[in-house]
Amino acid sequence: MTAIDLNCDMGESFGNYTMGNDEAVMPYITSANIAGGFHAGDPHVLFETVALAAKHDVGIGVHPGLPDKIGFGRRTIDATPEEVRDYVIYQLGAVLGVAKHHGVEIQHVKPHGAMYSMLSESEEHTRAVIEGILEVDPSLIYLATDLNIFSVAQEYDALDAVFEGYVDLDYASDGTIIVEQQKQPRDPELVADRVTSIAKHGTVKAVDGRTIDLPADSICIHGDGPNSLELLRTIHDRLDAEGIALRQLPELVSD
Amino acid sequence: MTAIDLNCDMGESFGNYTMGNDEAVMPYITSANIAGGFHAGDPHVLFETVALAAKHDVGIGVHPGLPDKIGFGRRTIDATPEEVRDYVIYQLGAVLGVAKHHGVEIQHVKPHGAMYSMLSESEEHTRAVIEGILEVDPSLIYLATDLNIFSVAQEYDALDAVFEGYVDLDYASDGTIIVEQQKQPRDPELVADRVTSIAKHGTVKAVDGRTIDLPADSICIHGDGPNSLELLRTIHDRLDAEGIALRQLPELVSD
Amino acid sequence: MTAIDLNCDMGESFGNYTMGNDEAVMPYITSANIAGGFHAGDPHVLFETVALAAKHDVGIGVHPGLPDKIGFGRRTIDATPEEVRDYVIYQLGAVLGVAKHHGVEIQHVKPHGAMYSMLSESEEHTRAVIEGILEVDPSLIYLATDLNIFSVAQEYDALDAVFEGYVDLDYASDGTIIVEQQKQPRDPELVADRVTSIAKHGTVKAVDGRTIDLPADSICIHGDGPNSLELLRTIHDRLDAEGIALRQLPELVSD
Amino acid sequence: MTAIDLNCDMGESFGNYTMGNDEAVMPYITSANIAGGFHAGDPHVLFETVALAAKHDVGIGVHPGLPDKIGFGRRTIDATPEEVRDYVIYQLGAVLGVAKHHGVEIQHVKPHGAMYSMLSESEEHTRAVIEGILEVDPSLIYLATDLNIFSVAQEYDALDAVFEGYVDLDYASDGTIIVEQQKQPRDPELVADRVTSIAKHGTVKAVDGRTIDLPADSICIHGDGPNSLELLRTIHDRLDAEGIALRQLPELVSD
Repeated sequence: MTAIDLNCDMGESFGNYTMGNDEAVMPYITSANIAGGFHAGDPHVLFETVALAAKHDVGIGVHPGLPDKIGFGRRTIDATPEEVRDYVIYQLGAVLGVAKHHGVEIQHVKPHGAMYSMLSESEEHTRAVIEGILEVDPSLIYLATDLNIFSVAQEYDALDAVFEGYVDLDYASDGTIIVEQQKQPRDPELVADRVTSIAKHGTVKAVDGRTIDLPADSICIHGDGPNSLELLRTIHDRLDAEGIALRQLPELVSD
Repeated sequence: MTAIDLNCDMGESFGNYTMGNDEAVMPYITSANIAGGFHAGDPHVLFETVALAAKHDVGIGVHPGLPDKIGFGRRTIDATPEEVRDYVIYQLGAVLGVAKHHGVEIQHVKPHGAMYSMLSESEEHTRAVIEGILEVDPSLIYLATDLNIFSVAQEYDALDAVFEGYVDLDYASDGTIIVEQQKQPRDPELVADRVTSIAKHGTVKAVDGRTIDLPADSICIHGDGPNSLELLRTIHDRLDAEGIALRQLPELVSD
Repeated sequence: MTAIDLNCDMGESFGNYTMGNDEAVMPYITSANIAGGFHAGDPHVLFETVALAAKHDVGIGVHPGLPDKIGFGRRTIDATPEEVRDYVIYQLGAVLGVAKHHGVEIQHVKPHGAMYSMLSESEEHTRAVIEGILEVDPSLIYLATDLNIFSVAQEYDALDAVFEGYVDLDYASDGTIIVEQQKQPRDPELVADRVTSIAKHGTVKAVDGRTIDLPADSICIHGDGPNSLELLRTIHDRLDAEGIALRQLPELVSD
Repeated sequence: MTAIDLNCDMGESFGNYTMGNDEAVMPYITSANIAGGFHAGDPHVLFETVALAAKHDVGIGVHPGLPDKIGFGRRTIDATPEEVRDYVIYQLGAVLGVAKHHGVEIQHVKPHGAMYSMLSESEEHTRAVIEGILEVDPSLIYLATDLNIFSVAQEYDALDAVFEGYVDLDYASDGTIIVEQQKQPRDPELVADRVTSIAKHGTVKAVDGRTIDLPADSICIHGDGPNSLELLRTIHDRLDAEGIALRQLPELVSD
């Protein structure tokens, strides 16, 4: 049976500041990438978000970022591979502590924003992070946003890696995502078409109409888009109609 | 055989700022209370400090503080019991992640500065923190600086608690520690006398000459005093001479 | 002619996080209390907010908070009078630098949240802050939220102080404000009645129907309430109808 | 009369962490570059450092850094020109506020670490910062560490810029400074020779023996070197012997 994971960034609120729509989105996803407190989130938000994910049996991942709340972790910092590794392990540990408190496991790691860009551009940084994760817990899955990182990750037999695709953003024909300045509402049927295409064929249509390969076992959905919930509901309906199963990452890597 | 633990706060350097004398002190202690990154420390310092403790087979504990680096975690913040619990669990998790990376376990939790004062003054805060720790890992030992906290901790059958005494600070006759503004060199023989007295008799002499009860299984040493290393060497010699064993916390609680 | 100032907390967004509705609210107020970057705000938000206030000829004040973004500056920190003074002067300076960049002056200082509570409870803290402000610029006006602080401020001949009243919150009969957990829409006519009553008679009705004295020359409006703009428009209409002028703080203290 | 300024980075302590040797160094310098609180320093350290500089009649400058205390402002952040400008203005304002409190003026701005590197590599960033400073106060002097920045600064008629040279670090023959990993003691006579050479001839000898142009009116001394005070005393003796005057920056630019 064809199966796919739906992941979403979660726990990015901070203090009195709300971001995203975690309570509404959580019932529709299978994996939550929870902010570790550096680019977003804080210990209280983390505590609540892990509890929410646990309540909905959503797979918990850490979404570590660079230590830059003003820039929301979207600005590259000239940090060494070891420094980035330390940021990942620290935040991975913090989420692990909270997960243990709630009696649940962590399943995956997905670096955020400029941290992921830094890994994409530097194999040395990618290796430092992957080797750091493996030392902490080799059962963790690396959720890769980028083929550069994914191909390095696949060199590590001990590490399971899953590639993710986007359906509420457009792809250029070179396989890069076209990031929008301001989130726009998306056509639910088009988004659902992309989910089907990725799940069934491992491909997606780029903006110029070309079909590009996207070997993704997970779909990343943005929870703070103007019609995110509508998109999620439409995706669920389509998955049902097409007989595509929703599965969490550990089930997908063991295939 | 009479036995005691020697603990010291560690990993309180931050970025380019050095605090304490961790490399020199680590060989002389049995338990390291490692800063979790809130009042002191950072992910890189934490990584190095856990590695150093692991190298010397020193028992690793987390030393969580309030989120106040300017005040070094020594200023009370009007945080709720749940907020303080969240700070403890987050930092406990972070140290846990790093410890897993280095292939070692965490054995204890010892709140720092104003966080410990807040627990001492509020049973509700103490209970929130203890219950939080128990949810994460009931094998963790609570290292109590204060009899208020120690007595609450002892109500929890699932939790092992150890009381600590001070030998490089003076006690008032009511059992409170007299904190000095500026760290002074201490007389090594007097300090060693106190260690012996605590280990053998569970008592220590207060500044007015009275003997007070101090049911401590662990001795806290300040690593940044002007003659800390001399004190530690003298303590080690005295322990040898008196036939008092150095033991880590888990061995002491299982007695 | 009867006159009053309308003030609102501004510039409390942070990084990618939006708080309040500054662009919509700014045209309706005469004084903006702009966050100094400790409890809320950041250098970029500050830059934009001062520019916005300058564009609308709104009087610029600094809204300094305690260094606690997680707690939004609403948690007391056990800081000394000198420490609180330093936080005020640092943030006052930061806003001053940005104001000079935009070619405008700063007119007032209004401490935020727990900082103001600390001043209210400690005359020593209030004096340290006031004397600190006077050293920076004696032409600054202290906008006082509380009669304790106001009465201390009035002892300083060199300092102009203005008391502020609330109209979108209820007063208890002892003159304290009843803070709501979640902001509710407010009846615009009731709110406008309160503005008129404060401006014309220096009184307001408490929740139990009693009339209490409120010697306020400024009205604080919350810009992030569910119907803030409606309230502001109704207040403006009422002020016109009643012949009450809107004036900035410097004009009110020189009366 | 030949004259030169001696500048030193100051106020880089933070909370309980001490950096440098400000009290001992201050009597020997003519300009203090005081940390603005982002890469180092805090509101209390800033308050004390400005007071110390004022006491010794040392010219006060702001030493703004990137918001990265873990990296001590030495890691490039991919921030826009406007963002860097905002960091400069915010910190400039903060120091201005404290200086006004102590009744003294600010005379100069000298960006720190990676911020200065970013300016050196991007004319657009340099222009944003310079134009930002000019808007705040055109009487401020830009203290340039680098010829790229210096040449852009000189295009602005409204801005006075001074170039600085180093004497406790070696120059490569291309005019770049050779930064050492760990600060070493320096030969006081060699350092004094360099001061004389820069002051009298605008040149310095590179490590390969070649003479390079160094049109510096200010000498930067590191206050935390192992023999900084010895260097400063020797420099003072040499300046006396050579009849070279110590002058603050405003006197040097008005020449």
